[in-house]
Amino acid sequence: MSKKIPHRLYLTEEQMPKQWYNLRADMKELPAPLLNPGTLQPAKLEELYPVFCEKLAEQEMDNTTRYIDIPEEIQDFYKMYRPSPLIRAYNLEKALGTPAKIYYKFEGNNTSGSHKLNSAIAQAYYAKEQGLTGLTTETGAGQWGTALSEACAYYNLPLTVFMVKVSYEQKPFRKSVMQTFDAEIIASPSNTTKIGQMILSKDPNTGGSLGCAISEAIEKAVSTPGYRYVLGSVLNQVLLHQSIIGLESKAAMEMLDEYPDIVIGCAGGGSNLGGLIAPFMQDKLTGKASPRILAVEPASCPSFTRGKYAYDFCDTGRVTPLAKMYTLGSSFMPSANHAGGLRYHGMSPILSKLYHDGYMEAVAVEQTKVFEAAVFFAKQETILPAPESAHAIRAAIDEALKCKETGEAKTILFGLTGTGYFDMTAYNAFLNGSMSDYIPTDEDLQKGFDELPEVPNQ
Amino acid sequence: MSKKIPHRLYLTEEQMPKQWYNLRADMKELPAPLLNPGTLQPAKLEELYPVFCEKLAEQEMDNTTRYIDIPEEIQDFYKMYRPSPLIRAYNLEKALGTPAKIYYKFEGNNTSGSHKLNSAIAQAYYAKEQGLTGLTTETGAGQWGTALSEACAYYNLPLTVFMVKVSYEQKPFRKSVMQTFDAEIIASPSNTTKIGQMILSKDPNTGGSLGCAISEAIEKAVSTPGYRYVLGSVLNQVLLHQSIIGLESKAAMEMLDEYPDIVIGCAGGGSNLGGLIAPFMQDKLTGKASPRILAVEPASCPSFTRGKYAYDFCDTGRVTPLAKMYTLGSSFMPSANHAGGLRYHGMSPILSKLYHDGYMEAVAVEQTKVFEAAVFFAKQETILPAPESAHAIRAAIDEALKCKETGEAKTILFGLTGTGYFDMTAYNAFLNGSMSDYIPTDEDLQKGFDELPEVPNQ
Repeated sequence: MSKKIPHRLYLTEEQMPKQWYNLRADMKELPAPLLNPGTLQPAKLEELYPVFCEKLAEQEMDNTTRYIDIPEEIQDFYKMYRPSPLIRAYNLEKALGTPAKIYYKFEGNNTSGSHKLNSAIAQAYYAKEQGLTGLTTETGAGQWGTALSEACAYYNLPLTVFMVKVSYEQKPFRKSVMQTFDAEIIASPSNTTKIGQMILSKDPNTGGSLGCAISEAIEKAVSTPGYRYVLGSVLNQVLLHQSIIGLESKAAMEMLDEYPDIVIGCAGGGSNLGGLIAPFMQDKLTGKASPRILAVEPASCPSFTRGKYAYDFCDTGRVTPLAKMYTLGSSFMPSANHAGGLRYHGMSPILSKLYHDGYMEAVAVEQTKVFEAAVFFAKQETILPAPESAHAIRAAIDEALKCKETGEAKTILFGLTGTGYFDMTAYNAFLNGSMSDYIPTDEDLQKGFDELPEVPNQ
Repeated sequence: MSKKIPHRLYLTEEQMPKQWYNLRADMKELPAPLLNPGTLQPAKLEELYPVFCEKLAEQEMDNTTRYIDIPEEIQDFYKMYRPSPLIRAYNLEKALGTPAKIYYKFEGNNTSGSHKLNSAIAQAYYAKEQGLTGLTTETGAGQWGTALSEACAYYNLPLTVFMVKVSYEQKPFRKSVMQTFDAEIIASPSNTTKIGQMILSKDPNTGGSLGCAISEAIEKAVSTPGYRYVLGSVLNQVLLHQSIIGLESKAAMEMLDEYPDIVIGCAGGGSNLGGLIAPFMQDKLTGKASPRILAVEPASCPSFTRGKYAYDFCDTGRVTPLAKMYTLGSSFMPSANHAGGLRYHGMSPILSKLYHDGYMEAVAVEQTKVFEAAVFFAKQETILPAPESAHAIRAAIDEALKCKETGEAKTILFGLTGTGYFDMTAYNAFLNGSMSDYIPTDEDLQKGFDELPEVPNQ
C-alpha cells in the first residue's frame, strides 16, 4: 500500500509564503467602498483611524497592491504553528467509496484551535507597532477571541473581548482559555456599554449576536484612550492576512501536481473562505484556471443564499461604516445556532462582490446534516471538527458522493478551519437527538430587510 | 533573523519509523517477571490470554526482539496524524533568557489530544485481527479513553470505558468526545461490577482511582464473551508502541545535528516517558552516549521519589498479575489532583528497573508550580498544555534556568504529551487562586505500604 501522495504534506519553513496576497488587485470590478455612516459618502482613510489601527486601515483601503510583505516578526510567529498541513483524506474517500480525491487544509493545530490566529497575530503586531495601549474585539464561537487573546498575550497588550452571550453560556471553557491569556471577557449584550444597555432594555433575554457584540467593542474602543477595535472576519484586511491559507494550499498542491476542481469553504463573515480561495480565485480572475468555488453557510443564517446585496451596517448598533454586502439586515438576530462563528448577518464585501458577479457559488446546509458529517469525518480522519468547519465537510462529502454517482475523479479541496473541543455541548445535543434545525421564514427575513439603511444610488 | 534550525521539524512519511523499538532487548538486567496472582509464580504467556489479546500478551512477554515491525495498517493510521513535530522552543528560550536549547516533541495534534493514540490504534488493530468482539479499559484524565474510543470506532469495535469518577465529574466534555466515537462510558467505581460495588460500600464518596477503574474494566472483560481488556500505560507492550515518539525525536534531532544532554518526560504509568526516552536509553545502555534522563511526577502521587520498589498489584481489586515496580501500594487513593493522568499508584516495570539501577533520575513537583509553568509556556509557544505534560515543562524550565545561572548551553528535550482543552476546570482553579498543593505525609504513604502483598524472595 505504498502511496505517492503522502497523507499530510507540510511545506518547509523556506517554502512558506513571505507575502500576503491581496485579491482586490486582480478583481475586474472592486467591491463598493465603505461609507461614512454620518455622510453616507465613501469613507476616507483618516476617518477610520479613531476606530482602527492605522496600518490596518491602510490595508483595508488598499485595492491595488497585489502582494504585501509579511513583517518578519509575524513570519516568525507563524513558524510556531505553521505551515499547516495539507491532508489527503484517504480514509474519508475510502469510507465514502468515491473516486474523488479529497484534500483539506487543516488550520486547527494551535491553541486558538482555528485559522483565526493568522490575522490575530498580524493585528496585534500592528497595534503594538503603533504604540496602542489596548484592543477590544468581539467573538462568536470564541475562536477569534481565543486567537486574539493569544496574540495579545504575546505582545503584552491588554484586551477586552465581548463574547456573544449564547456562546458565553454554551462554551464556558472557551472563556477560561481566553482568561489564561489574560483577556477580559464580557458577555454581550452587557451593561458596560450604552449600546448594550439599549439592546438589553429591548430584550433582556437575548442571546446576543456578533453584530451587537461589535457595537459594544467599538464603543469601548473609541471611549478608551489608546485603544482601538479589531475584527476577526468580514474586513478586507482580514482576508488579506488569511490569504496565507490559500497560498500554502496552492503551493502544496503544486508540489503534488494537483489542482482542485472544486474549492469549498465555510462562510460566516468570510475570513477562512476568502483566505482559502484567494489564489484559486486569482487564477479564475486572470483566466489561468476555472475551479468551482463553493461557499457553505448555515441554513439558519443564510446571508449569501437568501440575503440582499445592499449597503448595511456591520453591527447592530449602527455605529460602523456601511459596507455593501450580502446581508440579512443588521437587526437580524440569528437563532441559537451552535455554529456560533457563522452567526453573522453580513458577509465580506470582497466575497459578496465576487458572488454577485458570478465567480462563486453558495449553498446553505442544515445543522443536523452538518453534525452528521462532522461525526462521520471524525471517525475516519481522527480530527474532531468545529461545527463551523463541518459545514465545509458536509459540502465536500456531498460533492464526493456526486462523483461516486457520475464516476468522476474530481479533486476537491476544502478548508478545515478548526477543532471542536469546545463544542461538545453541541455535539451532545446532536448525539442525544435534541438538536433541531431552524430555518428562518421569508417573513423572519423580511423584518431584517425592512430595516436596511437607505443609501442613495447604490 | 534567519535560523538554520526550523521552529518545527516534521519527518517525511518515508522517514517515519517502520519498527517499534523494544528497550528490554538492550537492558543489562531485565525487569522482574509478572507474577500469577494465585500462585505468585512467574506468569506464563497462556495465563495472560483470558485478559489480554494474544498478540499483545506476546509483546508483553517478549524481552529479546529488539525491533518489532509495525503492521502496515498501523503505519497507515499513524500517517493520519504523524509524524508529530519536533519543535524548537525559540520563544520560551527567549522569555527565559537561557543559553539552553529547548526542544519538545508535541504529541497533541490528533483528536485524542495526546500520545495515547500511538498505542490505542495498535491495540485495537490486534484485537480486530484476533476477531475479538469488544474491549474494555479504564481512563484517568480521559486521554487514553478518548484515544481508544477513536481507534475502536475506526475498527468498529465496541468499547466500554471505566472513567475515574473525579475526572468524569471534572471533565464532562471528555465523556462527550468518547461518546462521539460510540464508546460506553461508566464512572468508576460503579455499581456495574462486583469490585466497584465493594469499593463503593467501603467509601460511597470516593473519587476513584486508576487502580480501581482497572479492576472494574478487567472484571467486565473476563465476564463478557469475546471481550478483552486493554491498558494505556504501565505495560511493556505500551512502552513498545510508544517508542515511536522517541524514535521520531531522535531521527529529527539527528537531522539537525543535535543530541539531548537531558531528556525529560512526565511520569504517571510511564507510557510517554518510556516511549520518549527509549532510543536515548538505548544509547546509554550500550555506552554510545550518556544523556541525563529525568522523570517528572506529581508531588501528590510520588511513585518514583517516595514509593517502594516491590511486587504489587496493578489494580485496587487485586485481580491483575503482580508487577515489580515503584509503588505507593494498590490501596493508595490519590487526592483529587487535577493531573488525572498521573494519578496512578505504580509505575512501568521497565522504567522502575532502570530507575532502580541508576539509569535515570526522578523529581516530584507541586501542582501550582506545574500550572504556573503551563500558563507561562502557553503564552510563549501558542500551545495550551495538558496538566500532565506541564510537569515536564516545569522541569524543562527549571533545567533551563539552571543553565542561565551556569551559562551552559545545554540541549534539553522534553515530551509535550498533549493539549489541555479539557482541563479548563483545573486552569480556572489555578487562575482564580483556589488550587492547592497536596503532598501526602509519610503516614499517608505508610498505609499503602502496609498493604503491599507479601511475595517471597523478591
